[in-house]
Amino acid sequence: MSKKITGIGASEGIAIAKAYVLVEDHIKVSDTKVKDTKKELKLIDEALSKAKKDLSNLQKIALEKLGPEKAAIFEAHEQILEDPAMSEEWNKLVQEEFCNAAFAVKTVADKYSAMFLAMEDDYFKERAADVKDVTERLIRYILNMPVLDLATIAEEVIIVADDLTPSQTAQLNPKFVKGFATNIGGRTSHAAIMARSLEIPAVLGLKNITTTVKSGEMLAIDGQTGNLEIAPSDVKAWATKEEQFKKIKQELMSFKNKKTITKDGFDKFILEGNIGAPKDVEAVLSNGGEGIGLFRSEFLYMDNDHFPTEEEQFVAYKKVVEDMNGHVTIIRTLDIGGDKKLSYFKFPEEMNPFLGYRAIRFTLDRKDIFREQIRALLRASAFGPLGIMFPMIATIDEFKAAKQFTLDCKKELEKEGVKIGKDLQIGMMVEIPAAAVNAENFAKHADFFSVGTNDLVQYSMAADRMSENVTYLYQPYNPSILRLLKMTIDGAHKHGKWAGMCGEMAGEPQAIPLLMGLGLDAFSMSATSILRARSIISKLTLKETQELASKALDCETTDEVLKLVDALLAKSEK
Amino acid sequence: MSKKITGIGASEGIAIAKAYVLVEDHIKVSDTKVKDTKKELKLIDEALSKAKKDLSNLQKIALEKLGPEKAAIFEAHEQILEDPAMSEEWNKLVQEEFCNAAFAVKTVADKYSAMFLAMEDDYFKERAADVKDVTERLIRYILNMPVLDLATIAEEVIIVADDLTPSQTAQLNPKFVKGFATNIGGRTSHAAIMARSLEIPAVLGLKNITTTVKSGEMLAIDGQTGNLEIAPSDVKAWATKEEQFKKIKQELMSFKNKKTITKDGFDKFILEGNIGAPKDVEAVLSNGGEGIGLFRSEFLYMDNDHFPTEEEQFVAYKKVVEDMNGHVTIIRTLDIGGDKKLSYFKFPEEMNPFLGYRAIRFTLDRKDIFREQIRALLRASAFGPLGIMFPMIATIDEFKAAKQFTLDCKKELEKEGVKIGKDLQIGMMVEIPAAAVNAENFAKHADFFSVGTNDLVQYSMAADRMSENVTYLYQPYNPSILRLLKMTIDGAHKHGKWAGMCGEMAGEPQAIPLLMGLGLDAFSMSATSILRARSIISKLTLKETQELASKALDCETTDEVLKLVDALLAKSEK
Repeated sequence: MSKKITGIGASEGIAIAKAYVLVEDHIKVSDTKVKDTKKELKLIDEALSKAKKDLSNLQKIALEKLGPEKAAIFEAHEQILEDPAMSEEWNKLVQEEFCNAAFAVKTVADKYSAMFLAMEDDYFKERAADVKDVTERLIRYILNMPVLDLATIAEEVIIVADDLTPSQTAQLNPKFVKGFATNIGGRTSHAAIMARSLEIPAVLGLKNITTTVKSGEMLAIDGQTGNLEIAPSDVKAWATKEEQFKKIKQELMSFKNKKTITKDGFDKFILEGNIGAPKDVEAVLSNGGEGIGLFRSEFLYMDNDHFPTEEEQFVAYKKVVEDMNGHVTIIRTLDIGGDKKLSYFKFPEEMNPFLGYRAIRFTLDRKDIFREQIRALLRASAFGPLGIMFPMIATIDEFKAAKQFTLDCKKELEKEGVKIGKDLQIGMMVEIPAAAVNAENFAKHADFFSVGTNDLVQYSMAADRMSENVTYLYQPYNPSILRLLKMTIDGAHKHGKWAGMCGEMAGEPQAIPLLMGLGLDAFSMSATSILRARSIISKLTLKETQELASKALDCETTDEVLKLVDALLAKSEK
Repeated sequence: MSKKITGIGASEGIAIAKAYVLVEDHIKVSDTKVKDTKKELKLIDEALSKAKKDLSNLQKIALEKLGPEKAAIFEAHEQILEDPAMSEEWNKLVQEEFCNAAFAVKTVADKYSAMFLAMEDDYFKERAADVKDVTERLIRYILNMPVLDLATIAEEVIIVADDLTPSQTAQLNPKFVKGFATNIGGRTSHAAIMARSLEIPAVLGLKNITTTVKSGEMLAIDGQTGNLEIAPSDVKAWATKEEQFKKIKQELMSFKNKKTITKDGFDKFILEGNIGAPKDVEAVLSNGGEGIGLFRSEFLYMDNDHFPTEEEQFVAYKKVVEDMNGHVTIIRTLDIGGDKKLSYFKFPEEMNPFLGYRAIRFTLDRKDIFREQIRALLRASAFGPLGIMFPMIATIDEFKAAKQFTLDCKKELEKEGVKIGKDLQIGMMVEIPAAAVNAENFAKHADFFSVGTNDLVQYSMAADRMSENVTYLYQPYNPSILRLLKMTIDGAHKHGKWAGMCGEMAGEPQAIPLLMGLGLDAFSMSATSILRARSIISKLTLKETQELASKALDCETTDEVLKLVDALLAKSEK
């Protein structure tokens, strides 16, 4: 008999296939103390060499089946295994606290993965999954438990699991794996990110799907609505849905090499991608991105055991700028602090870290660290159009100080004979209300603005979106927020500058008509949202979006705004 | 030889007198465990009765010398000694943890005083000092140590101490005590508050003044600049300064019964007082206040061991409304959460409490608690003009929900035959950027706005003013903040409503000309700032403040704004 369950739609698409239930024996790690610490250290060493051998095998398989990008994950895993900071910590736990090998590794792994998990960017959430994954392999070897191998799946299936680790997803052959359904996880979990990147549908957070479904049963999932049906009663209806989804997807693919142009011929909107590391450039270009609107430079700092040197940074920035092949790359300077910590630097304890010592406040205070980054950025600017963007600017004094510092570094480099790009731009994030309301004066000094909607909404509403008691106040479509956006965009245009957006909102279908109408110049989003954005823009006239925006600005509530937007979107689909 | 030191000017005025150095033996409390718990409980009991006897004596002395208001402090102290929650806690520490009597009392006292100290309002900082003071007396009796008595001072002196406790200040006879100079403390410490209320100069935070000065040495202090001179070389110059200060003060006193009117005859500005408890009304009226612009209702909740009942609240609100004798009283509904906690209710742990579950977010969620307050407020409205003000409003939805709830309670009361005041107003704090930028739409629903500058600045700048790393961003005079104020005031006026300010800024000399020019209607401040504000207003024309405001709005930095203000203020003094 058919049974319907709803979870979290985490990767769009329809899949109909047999369930492949991944049952793993749960790892139990006791905290018993040991006397023979040498024996435990040896256990860790042996497990390390077995794990490294696995990883290099997996890398070969992934390279063959999935290409170099996916294979790179195993390289990252090897780096984690070789991280001296982690191994030092677990060795210490064994030697000084007499912990057993498995417990020592688990303790250190939990600490590092919690640190990464607390961060906002997908990039770092992935790191948490990587640490968990690779150390679990290690613990399994220490405890002499079996290690699973998914590379053998050779028929069409939907994987049903508690959760999926990076090494598991990298082993999967998308030819056979049609979808995921998991007990835990949400839109930002590793399984969700991988599913979207592999372009296979996923429904997560189904709580106990591994015990509800048996291997071999037929399953149908809708990765947009989060619906799942066991032994579907109407397979034909599911097949039709799948057909429709593929059609829409195909239609989107047709936008890949098209211009971004409105129904009435306005072609000045630019669609860009947000990236977290040089490897992400590929996805932006393959999805028709016209630039990088936000390169978060944090990865260089957080995925490291020291502040990256000028040279290390230069190599990364240069690679992105070159790979973008003439398209502009906007690189945000270090946005650390708040919820983003470093393992090798202690930030002050603060009662409200989101309102504290972070981003530009930190780098203006620590010019020694800032200098390395600014010099690396300036040097990279010689290899293609580059924009330097300062985060968390609240006052004109701060912007002027950061800009002057950059110009001083430029002079210094020029004295050293280093070439600087002619198209260098120096701009700022608008993510603090004080910057938005006085944008017209900031625009006298900044070459561009880029709105960070997560923070802007958070501060404007005085509501931490991570605090579940006040999530109802996270309202990017609230008229107050639209007014701040208007001030920002109008402020930029008043002085002939451009205004972009690199927050989550920029890629949301409901936001796009509003942002068009408000006159936003550049929309930077996840690579996978770009084609949909281009399609939406193609179906709207500039004039009707302007009328929409003007009405929305005078609405009283978020609901009123969304009603107007939905009406226009429905009309555009006709 | 003369010696000059600078501390924190905490209460204006000049004093020249002999030093009276208060040296106290430091209390040492050991944490040794005890076996005979009954003996320790008996020690606490005996100390309690001695302390209570002291307090009733001190109350008599204070009543004679200082009047009923100051004497009331000892009543409050007696209440602390009789608080069942505290005594239950320390008895438990003795009985279950085998703590010694002094350690048990100290542990509980430290906990309660830390809780009060973490709060922003002066009212609660005073409570922290009270707890510390009264429990120290208790500990001294438990440890059989001497308890000081300052009521015996009978010659003109400046008290030099590490810090001053509430019971010490209440014993002081202002006829003889000319000033304070202390090692620790700042503008919001108990000693500062008491000095301002006794109108005697105080310089605090002098670090080691108790060891630098000897009793009997001549001292001169300037409570505005924070300057202190030991054995002053030019006593005549100090005397002239004192003369000047008295002249200015006299001039200010002449404003007590005058109208608030600008140099060019505009008489619509209203000067009001902020209060924390019914007892504060007296100071507002005696300083010529024309209303209460902010009555913080938190005292009823925080100085309590349960959520106050409707009846308990009604009694307090009615007293204030009646005491104000026809002048308006604006009462803010419960603004709890953030840094303000309750001993009998656990708020959720949040990473950024300032961006969390607090104020209206809490009361809209807990209508059972809200209802008691709203009913009490509505009932009190029958006794004089009253405004109900909701804190932390971010969206129009929230305001409408709070207002509707109030109207429902009103209907309910009317059904019960209860009279409601005709002049009842329902308004809101503007302290969240989202409210300021869309004020013109909020004003369709709210009867009035009152700007809370501390929070508005904090959120607009995304900077916690308690975090010392980012205090430089606490800029109430930043053009961005002025723009938010303008939107708020213009928004109110567009719909015929009034806009006030009850944040610290409203009473600051540099803010007043700007706020006049921006068209603020009501200025609510500390009672002791009212006459100075009236004097400043009398020396300025409305027109020149409007020109100032218009220029300030287009400044780029806080410094530029302050320069314009200072030039106008200097001109007005000529």
